[in-house]
Amino acid sequence: MSSPSGAGKTTLSRALLASDHHIRMSVSVTTRPPRPGELDGKDYFFISKERFFEMRDKEELLEWAEVFGNLYGTPRLPVEDALAKGRDVLFDIDWQGTQQLEQAMRDDLVRIFILPPTTDELRDRLIKRAQDSSSVVAKRMAEASREMSHWAEYDYVIVNDDVATSSAEITAILTAERLRRTRRIGLTEFVRGLNKTL
Amino acid sequence: MSSPSGAGKTTLSRALLASDHHIRMSVSVTTRPPRPGELDGKDYFFISKERFFEMRDKEELLEWAEVFGNLYGTPRLPVEDALAKGRDVLFDIDWQGTQQLEQAMRDDLVRIFILPPTTDELRDRLIKRAQDSSSVVAKRMAEASREMSHWAEYDYVIVNDDVATSSAEITAILTAERLRRTRRIGLTEFVRGLNKTL
Repeated sequence: MSSPSGAGKTTLSRALLASDHHIRMSVSVTTRPPRPGELDGKDYFFISKERFFEMRDKEELLEWAEVFGNLYGTPRLPVEDALAKGRDVLFDIDWQGTQQLEQAMRDDLVRIFILPPTTDELRDRLIKRAQDSSSVVAKRMAEASREMSHWAEYDYVIVNDDVATSSAEITAILTAERLRRTRRIGLTEFVRGLNKTL
Repeated sequence: MSSPSGAGKTTLSRALLASDHHIRMSVSVTTRPPRPGELDGKDYFFISKERFFEMRDKEELLEWAEVFGNLYGTPRLPVEDALAKGRDVLFDIDWQGTQQLEQAMRDDLVRIFILPPTTDELRDRLIKRAQDSSSVVAKRMAEASREMSHWAEYDYVIVNDDVATSSAEITAILTAERLRRTRRIGLTEFVRGLNKTL
């Protein structure tokens, strides 16, 4: 899932993880310092630049990007572990990360873009993050605009007017994508079995 | 939606039409005589062979097929009317019809295949249609087997173990497909408006 900052993606991610126990969050690594309340290993893995570049060079990152001078990346190993166990993985990443993931995940990536219903709300939400200075807020608005310009690269688009509706829509997308023929492992055998007993 | 006869597709179609008022059924034309209880214009439009060939030759049919000597077809006009009004259309057709519809509908066709959970149930359901002779039942089983061999040509596959679950799955597919970027008319303008007010 991608969205401009402040469109409600974090709330929607949490709702999805709480209601669906077959999906787990991909926890990114970052070189930026933790914000108040953020937990290492839950919100991010907070690591040094040296460790970040080591992971990148050893191809331990599925995607990575630099945003406002900080580095962010998706560790490969937890994703491969989850998929091997038949779980799905939720990525909370921007358009740059999505483009890189497309190459790593091939046909198995489902891309959802979350749009805010209005920009008033987006501005309000961005300003309410009190720990950011006004120049950071201004930068984020420019970044939000850039992020929004990539909506057309996604498979699904949700206008997040109402959290309950958007949550239900994301759940429906997940349900449907799991029913795709290309993801139904074992159906060839199943149909062969049906035909034998007919 | 396609399925072998007796996999529960009719029940699932009715449930979908009852719960979703933005989709309407495509009523086929057929040259076979009505079965007891079938209504002209609701279950099928019962027409003569002459009228059928006339419709076919005037390209008034989106697809057509011959099954056990009877002709079946999908009239083009009601489909185009419904789509022009922003409605969706449900097609209850076999694999032959689906292949023809693909060409007529291009990227806008969503193909769902319904499989029975076991063939016991399928045989039971076929036999329970008391008006059919046992030779017709045998023919239908062979036809069911042929139909099932085409499951891999569909976008989604549902194993109809439980009607409520399968209904919810079909509803989820419909919800998700309506959220596809390629079907979200007006989003370019919407995002332009968001950016202007940011």
